Parts: sequence; structure tokens; C-alpha cells
Amino acid sequence: MGRTVTEKILAAHCKQGNFKPGDIIDVDVDLLLMNDITGPVAVEVFNKMGDGDVFDKNKIVVVLDHFTPNKDVTSAKLSKTMRDFVAEKGICHFYDAGYGIEHVVLPEDGLVKPGDLVIGGDSHTVTHGALGVFSTGMGSTDVAGIMALGKTWLKVPEQMKVLLVGAPGKWVSGKDVILYVISMIGTDGALGKSLEFDGVGAKYMDMDSRFTICNMAVECGAVNGIFAFDEVAKKFVDALGLRDYKEYNSDADAIYKKIIDVDLSELEPMVAMPHLPSNGRPVTEVGDIKIDQVFIGSCTNGRIKDLRIAAEIVKGKKVHPSVRGLIAPGSRKVFAQALKEGLIETFTDSGFTILPPGCGPCFGGHLGILAKGERCVSTTNRNFVGRMGDKESEVYLANPAVAAASAVAGRLVHPAEVM
Amino acid sequence: MGRTVTEKILAAHCKQGNFKPGDIIDVDVDLLLMNDITGPVAVEVFNKMGDGDVFDKNKIVVVLDHFTPNKDVTSAKLSKTMRDFVAEKGICHFYDAGYGIEHVVLPEDGLVKPGDLVIGGDSHTVTHGALGVFSTGMGSTDVAGIMALGKTWLKVPEQMKVLLVGAPGKWVSGKDVILYVISMIGTDGALGKSLEFDGVGAKYMDMDSRFTICNMAVECGAVNGIFAFDEVAKKFVDALGLRDYKEYNSDADAIYKKIIDVDLSELEPMVAMPHLPSNGRPVTEVGDIKIDQVFIGSCTNGRIKDLRIAAEIVKGKKVHPSVRGLIAPGSRKVFAQALKEGLIETFTDSGFTILPPGCGPCFGGHLGILAKGERCVSTTNRNFVGRMGDKESEVYLANPAVAAASAVAGRLVHPAEVM
Repeated sequence: MGRTVTEKILAAHCKQGNFKPGDIIDVDVDLLLMNDITGPVAVEVFNKMGDGDVFDKNKIVVVLDHFTPNKDVTSAKLSKTMRDFVAEKGICHFYDAGYGIEHVVLPEDGLVKPGDLVIGGDSHTVTHGALGVFSTGMGSTDVAGIMALGKTWLKVPEQMKVLLVGAPGKWVSGKDVILYVISMIGTDGALGKSLEFDGVGAKYMDMDSRFTICNMAVECGAVNGIFAFDEVAKKFVDALGLRDYKEYNSDADAIYKKIIDVDLSELEPMVAMPHLPSNGRPVTEVGDIKIDQVFIGSCTNGRIKDLRIAAEIVKGKKVHPSVRGLIAPGSRKVFAQALKEGLIETFTDSGFTILPPGCGPCFGGHLGILAKGERCVSTTNRNFVGRMGDKESEVYLANPAVAAASAVAGRLVHPAEVM
Repeated sequence: MGRTVTEKILAAHCKQGNFKPGDIIDVDVDLLLMNDITGPVAVEVFNKMGDGDVFDKNKIVVVLDHFTPNKDVTSAKLSKTMRDFVAEKGICHFYDAGYGIEHVVLPEDGLVKPGDLVIGGDSHTVTHGALGVFSTGMGSTDVAGIMALGKTWLKVPEQMKVLLVGAPGKWVSGKDVILYVISMIGTDGALGKSLEFDGVGAKYMDMDSRFTICNMAVECGAVNGIFAFDEVAKKFVDALGLRDYKEYNSDADAIYKKIIDVDLSELEPMVAMPHLPSNGRPVTEVGDIKIDQVFIGSCTNGRIKDLRIAAEIVKGKKVHPSVRGLIAPGSRKVFAQALKEGLIETFTDSGFTILPPGCGPCFGGHLGILAKGERCVSTTNRNFVGRMGDKESEVYLANPAVAAASAVAGRLVHPAEVM
């Protein structure tokens, strides 16, 4: 019986050979990820287990990205907890405030390799599936256990596939693909399942789009999102000089509980209306919605191609006077690259404010919180009630092109409308 | 009887001709300044007076700079209060989140003219004295009154003068002058007085240094700090294309309660040790003090020359691994200029994190708050207990050169030590 890429990665990381969906398996973890919110809780649990070493100093990454540069004394204490723990245990991979978002930093620094099994104390750990990786988020207690043992247990997920066909139009990117999928299947449409993306249209999805797609797989409940390893991924990992990675592809006779077809050529730029990621509709159908803020960034859409397309749109134009335009490059490397390409200058000339690399306003953390009644077009992943501020504020999820165009127009628009 | 520049400006703004120090006078206000912290309180008081117009829509400036981009729902509400008030009253000069710090934005946009009388709902309104302006901070109730009437009352301050002689060395700037003065006279050394800076050495103090000096005049209790109008100021206002300004100079027989001599050639870069701005001593005498964070920015030292000297020092070097290096350009214009000159790239290459223009960590607001036991070298103006975070954290005030060099060294050092 054939196996999917997810099943093959799981099989390579456990001793139980003949598992089927629903089985509980023990897996070895290649990389464990912690941040400044869930990390301190994991550290507390770990320390209660004793004063031993972590399972492998080289397989743990700590990234301080949520409340950094520290929002307040409480968050300063959380960061210090992680900083001190990293020093005490000799953890090799540490990114202090300002380096960037965990899910942007890890792939760009080559810490995640195709075929790896990655666990993170953050639900958007699913992002790394774009590289042909099994990656998922877990609670802090599980993370603490992995810190000690380098192992964890998993319930083998059922398999589900999105088959991409056709070529997307100019303004359509990964964000629209995943918003469309979630609008079709709902926020529990892939609950507990593995969500694989494949098909002849996959080649039109560059790595940055793939990171976006896998990132939001969790928004329809998936345990993991994943692209099989292909030429697009190969180019990416070769450029990083990665060695010793494993290429997995799904067998032709692998079994999927469900297969969804998406014709990229028919997709339009999508907007997920308040207050669910599943409330997606084409931007041309949203009506006249005036906005107060635009945020471009996050682990969903804070990569260089996201900034490039936003810059292409706003170049020579001004952010609408009633809009606060905020851009947070996903990492210091993204910022440096955007600087080199003149994108930061373009954004500044247009009236955007550049935020330091980090999660910032996405989770209602800081750096752009909404007041009652305010509306934000955001390239982030969640638009739940109060997600970015007051419980009577509204978040509209969109791709960076729609967000940039809307910043200029002062209302939700299709990018073509301002070009 | 001769008069000082401060007395001449006051005289030009009141009907009582023959005032003397200690007298209460009524003055006309040329410009009223509000921000997102004290502004909402003033607005509340103003609204309680009735629903009338402000005294002059063109003479009020609102800058949202303290908790912006909004830190949380509370600060989002404060910002919205000001934004709505500005729209309702038709106030002409409004700077939303990300434009910069009030005391940096006003001079660079030519809103403050030599000879003006400026009141702000912020203690560092004294900054503008650098332009030959009488400027001081007031409480929100006074600000509300001025909003309605365009007038306020003042107690005429006694006059005090700092006489600058000699030429400063390479690493000495305005920050060292004012830290030295405050170390001599204490935090109440100019309490209730006007503090004028003059002398043959004044010409070595460029405008950015003068803004720094006047900015911290309030840290020794002065009602205002001021430089008489001269060639340095003239060059600055001419470049802005300012017209209709008034040039005031102190008379030779003006009366000063106290005159302090400062020989710039004998000054060293200064550090104000915790927990008072008056705890200044030469950086060479501070001993071995390891640090956790460096912040370069604020209304004290967030201008282009501050960034230039910091960049000169860190170029090609790296921020010490145990230090978080934070730089907040004082305004979007400063950021844009720094971008053009390659300074932002230099800072990024060195490992600094660039914060959006604003007050950020200076007042313990957000974006770099200190945890218990942490030490920060900061180019800001106050190092009171808990000013930048936990009450057991420490702030060391210094000029941007010392701050930049310390970021590289990981401890407080003289700039020469890393060059």
C-alpha cells in the first residue's frame, strides 16, 4: 500500500513500521522550537523534571519574537527566562529580540531540512511543511518532554490532499490559495488531518507562497501542511548549501480521505472577512469597506517576495491619509534584503512605518493594536474577534498585494484598482 | 536695565511691560503641542468646558509618539481620542503613529520659529529653546485652557546662564555638556529658572547638540533652556525657508542669578550613573560595567547627527552577543535621511534592531523594556529607578558615541576604545 510524504517522514522517525491513521506512534524529533511566550512555560515544566541536560543542544532553537523588543516588564522577564535557560543549557541556536519570526528565521538559516520532523511550541510551526518537512505545534508540556527526551508521541493523521492545477494570475499568491481552501472546507475542514499540496499547478507556487500555504493549514485544523519535495524546494535548499536532507514524495497509490481540486487560473485575490479565516471571498465582492490600518508582515506573509509585491504596488504612491500603514519584515535578513533592493525606501517614501522584525500586531501583542470600531487589512493568519485589539475591531485577511493596494486606496480594493 | 533672550520673548508675548522675576504674567501662545499620553486628558478637560472651537486650528500640533504604533487596546483608545478630536476640531498639524517624536518633528517641519512662545503637554517641550524659542511643558489642564484661549499665565523665571568656552574634542557633544552641567548643579540646580546657553564656545554646538542640551535643561529643574539666536540657528531656519521669525539676544547688562562656566575643551564623554541624571562622571571613570541593552534614540538624541556618529563607530563591527542594540530614529525624516546615507544598512549589518520612530523604551513605554537586574546604556534623558523597566534595572545615560561603542564592547566604554 502506497504512502504519502507525511506518512513516509513519520515512518522514518519511528520504530513502529506498520502504522495506520489513528494509531499512536513514538517519533524522534529532529528540531524543537520555542519562543518567548510558550517557551517559559516549557522551561518551567522542564525544570520541575530535574536539573538535567536537554536531549541535544544542537537540536533546539529559541527565538524571541512575540513580545520583542520587550513590550513591558512581564515580557522582559519572559525573554530573560529564555535567555538564561539558553545560556545555562548551552543551547546552540538562539535568536534574541529583533532577529525575526521563528518560522521565517528557521528556513532562511537552513535549520530545517527536507525530511525532518519538527515540533514547535507554536501552532504555526506547520509553516515548515513547505520544505517537505513534517512539522506541527504542541503545548508547552509536550515541548518540555521533548526537551528532555528528544521524542514525543503522535496520533497518525488521516491524509487529505489539495490538488493544484492551472497557472495563477498576476495578483494571486499562496495566501489566496489557502484562503480559498479554508473558505471551502471551513475552519475544521482538515481537523486532525494532514493537508498535502500537490498537482501540476504546484510549480507556480514559489517557496514564499508555500510557506504561506502551509502556515495557514492549521487554520482549517490540519495537524500539518506539506508540499512534497520538488525542483522548487531543491533550488531553495541548494541555495542554502544544505546537505544530508531527505527527499520524500507521495506514492501514486497513497490513500487520501479527501482530495480537493483548486484551479489556480480561476482564483482571484481573496479576503477573509471578520471574524473567521474561513470567511473568504474574492476581494471584488467585499463591497465598500473603509479601513484604518494595514499590516504587512507575520510568519504568514513577511518574506521578501511579499515585500516585493507590496513595494511594486505602492511605489510612487502614498498611503491614504486615514490609514496607518505598518510593515514588519519577517526577519533581519528579510529587512536587509529589502533595504538592498530599495523596498524599505519605497515604503518609507509612501508613508509606511517599518516595524522591527517580529510578530507584533498579528496576535494583538503590540505595535499596532486596534481601537474599538477600527478595521485592519492584515496579511496575517487569524481574524478572530479581538485578535488584533479591541473586541469590536475588525481584521480582514488578505495577500500583501491587496493589503498594499488597500493602504493606498483607504478601503479594501483589488490591486489592479490602484495600478 | 538689560534683558535676557528669555525675558525679551516673554515681553513680546504679554501686555505687562515691566515684569521682574517672580511676577505672574499672561502670555499669548504661538504653538500648543499635545501627544497621545497627556493629550487625551487635555481633550477631556477641554470638552468639559463646552463644545466650542479651539483658539486657532493652525497653532495646535498633535503628535502620537509615546505608545505608538499602539502598544495595547488602552493606548489604541488614547490615539483614537486624539485622532477623532483633530478631525472634529479641524486641527491642521497632526502626526499619526510612526511620524516621529514631537520634539524632533516640530523643528524639522518648521513649525517652531525663533522668537516663538511654545507650550506643550510634555516636560521635554523645553527642547525647542535651541531655536531661540521660549518653550516649556505644562499639565493637561493648563493645556486645555490654552486650547480654548490661546493664552496662559507664567511666573517669570529668574535667569541663569551657562557660559561655554573652548572647543570640544571629537567624542564630546551636547549630551556631555548638559550631563556635566547637571552633575555640577544637581537635579534641582536650576529649579524654576530659565537656563540660557551662551559664550564663545556656543558656535561649536550644532543644532542637534543644542536640541539635546535644551531638552535636558528640565532635568535640573529649569522652566526653559535656551540658546540666543545666532549664525548656527540662522543656517538651520534658512534651510527650512522660515520667514517672519524674531531674532532675540540677551543684553550685555542682563541680570543673571548665577553664571556657570563650562570649558568644552576639558569635557570628556559623560555617563550619568543610576539613578539620577545628576550622577554624571567621565566614562573613563565608571569602571567595568557590563551591559544588556543599548538604546540610541529619543527626543534627546534621535537626530541625524546622533545616528551619524553612532554609525561611524559601529561600521564594520558587530554588536556584542550579550547586548540587544536598539536604534529608533527620531522621526520618519531622520529615518529616510539615515536610509539615504547608508546608516540604516550599517546598523543592520552590525546587528542593531531598528525601531519605528517614536519614544518607545525611553519612558518605559514599550519596545525594549528591561527585566530585573538588566543594564541599559541609553541616549535618553532620565535614568530614575524603573524608568525603562523593572525597578531593579539600571539605566546609564550617555551620548550616542558612547552608547554605540558600548554596544560593540558589551560594557560601558569610551568610543576611542573600539576605534
